[in-house]
Amino acid sequence: MSFKEKTLEDFFQLLLPEIDNQIKEEIERISENYSQLKYMLRYHMGWEENEGARPQGKRIRPLLLLLSVIGSGEEWKCGLSAAAAVELVHNFSLIHDDIEDKSEYRRGRKTLWVKWGIPQAINAGDLMFSLAQNAIANDKKSLENSKTIELLKLLQKTCIKLTQGQHLDLLFESEELITVDQYLNMISGKTAALLSCSTEMGAIIAGANEEKRRHLKEFGFSLGMAFQVVDDILGVWGEEDVIGKSVDGDIAQKKKTLPILYALQSSRDMQKLWRQNVLDQNAINELRNQMEKIGAKKHTEKIAKSFSDTAMKSINLAITDNSMRDALLSLTNQLLSRVN
Amino acid sequence: MSFKEKTLEDFFQLLLPEIDNQIKEEIERISENYSQLKYMLRYHMGWEENEGARPQGKRIRPLLLLLSVIGSGEEWKCGLSAAAAVELVHNFSLIHDDIEDKSEYRRGRKTLWVKWGIPQAINAGDLMFSLAQNAIANDKKSLENSKTIELLKLLQKTCIKLTQGQHLDLLFESEELITVDQYLNMISGKTAALLSCSTEMGAIIAGANEEKRRHLKEFGFSLGMAFQVVDDILGVWGEEDVIGKSVDGDIAQKKKTLPILYALQSSRDMQKLWRQNVLDQNAINELRNQMEKIGAKKHTEKIAKSFSDTAMKSINLAITDNSMRDALLSLTNQLLSRVN
Repeated sequence: MSFKEKTLEDFFQLLLPEIDNQIKEEIERISENYSQLKYMLRYHMGWEENEGARPQGKRIRPLLLLLSVIGSGEEWKCGLSAAAAVELVHNFSLIHDDIEDKSEYRRGRKTLWVKWGIPQAINAGDLMFSLAQNAIANDKKSLENSKTIELLKLLQKTCIKLTQGQHLDLLFESEELITVDQYLNMISGKTAALLSCSTEMGAIIAGANEEKRRHLKEFGFSLGMAFQVVDDILGVWGEEDVIGKSVDGDIAQKKKTLPILYALQSSRDMQKLWRQNVLDQNAINELRNQMEKIGAKKHTEKIAKSFSDTAMKSINLAITDNSMRDALLSLTNQLLSRVN
Repeated sequence: MSFKEKTLEDFFQLLLPEIDNQIKEEIERISENYSQLKYMLRYHMGWEENEGARPQGKRIRPLLLLLSVIGSGEEWKCGLSAAAAVELVHNFSLIHDDIEDKSEYRRGRKTLWVKWGIPQAINAGDLMFSLAQNAIANDKKSLENSKTIELLKLLQKTCIKLTQGQHLDLLFESEELITVDQYLNMISGKTAALLSCSTEMGAIIAGANEEKRRHLKEFGFSLGMAFQVVDDILGVWGEEDVIGKSVDGDIAQKKKTLPILYALQSSRDMQKLWRQNVLDQNAINELRNQMEKIGAKKHTEKIAKSFSDTAMKSINLAITDNSMRDALLSLTNQLLSRVN
């Protein structure tokens, strides 16, 4: 099958249903005798019609994986189990993060721990983690054993990074000040590691050479970093850039995101304002203005731009096929379009 | 190296330090930058000297795995990573179970969630789970790729069973009556699956034929079932059999263990007594007497005996070497010695 002339939209239409079918198949491995457990996972994935089924998340990780497979010259079907695996890992971590962060809603639906209690939700997350590993170990497609082991090694290394990143994130909550470097280190584990794993898996599955594999890995990593930093910008200045984004989000919740940390690091006045127990609307506006004045927005945008540039450069280095390169560049632009 | 004439005690002395060294090595994969996270896992394993280091658990699963490897004619060193993996899975599940059951102490030490809070404890459990998988996928010993994949598949299947068993256990808490069959199904996942996985892994690593593999798997499974059922008996009649066991444990806490379920299933009087909100000492004694009278103790002992017999028979069928067979029979006896 040729992918010449295919646009990103064509790939969405082709791949998204296949990805969901594969994830459904993995979840079907749960025995029929455990109907509630199966229901919990399906509910979390957004497939239970009577429970506000959609939206279901953007499936960015499996999409990146499959596009990396195709872009490296292999059939996308060879990557389907691994694609399901990265999405399952992502969702396992969401289930546990929601408990850890006490988040009551996700994608407009009540979170698992709110509906079924913390014990059952922890356990359902553990099961989703098992199913992720299982998807790769049990893949009956066409991968050689050596590739399967390579994929599992990478997945494990990634999950270790994920939990290390989450550990830091939780730790930082109780620390008054953390440095920008500490923060970047944290998001490299919590966000970028799994995106980097997804694109690198694409290279492994396609049997790409070391150089292409390195570029694809770098692409996923930089995209992940850029994505999180853009999110941080929107968390403070969102209403100016995107319609419908919550107004004072990160400042009001005193989240230590990149622009906020940069501002705190650069200004004692900011630190003083920040230390107030409750931030009222005046304080929030004052903080936002101060942050802009001392260049926190510009500085953060510069960092986002730098990661985004590296991501684009890596695509160009990794992918030779024009049509596939365009698709990956479009996807990257779409994900990061919220910033210049 | 010959194992002729070696006793179980010799194997303990040889293997226990090697098992702990291997687990320590797996935990050392956590980067030095995450010292608190590493400390949490080492603390849970009982290796932090200033925190009441011992006791550390009996390492039954890795011991069974390595003895199964030797008994199937292979070098025990080939099984070391897998041995670490099953112990890490066991301990990951303990960390999460302690949160789910609100247990404040384990092995005389405060549990992770009590010391570091639920969010960090969930995450530390997730990391331990990742390290378990990683131990096998990254094994640099001498296993062929096909065996490594076989081991990982089995580990995943087992973890799915573990979480299914735990799901039922949590579910049963809020159900007034569950049947003996439902209970046996629950412990087959929660307890027997990982023991069965351990002995079957031994067979896989040694490249044993299908028949031996089946017998070893059956041995681990039956031992696991027997072990749990014996525990249930001790939870009600412990003081008569074992010195130092808590007096009224399971009845006072209204745990739905096997003898209690059997009694409830067989007698309406029992159900009536059981439904009292708080069980005082009189009610506990009355319940225990009633249970004995209607044959709950005898019946449960019969079930334990039947599993224990199957375990012994399976050892005899799986292991031809006399000295190894004796070691495994001794270990089984030691674990189940608390019942006739």
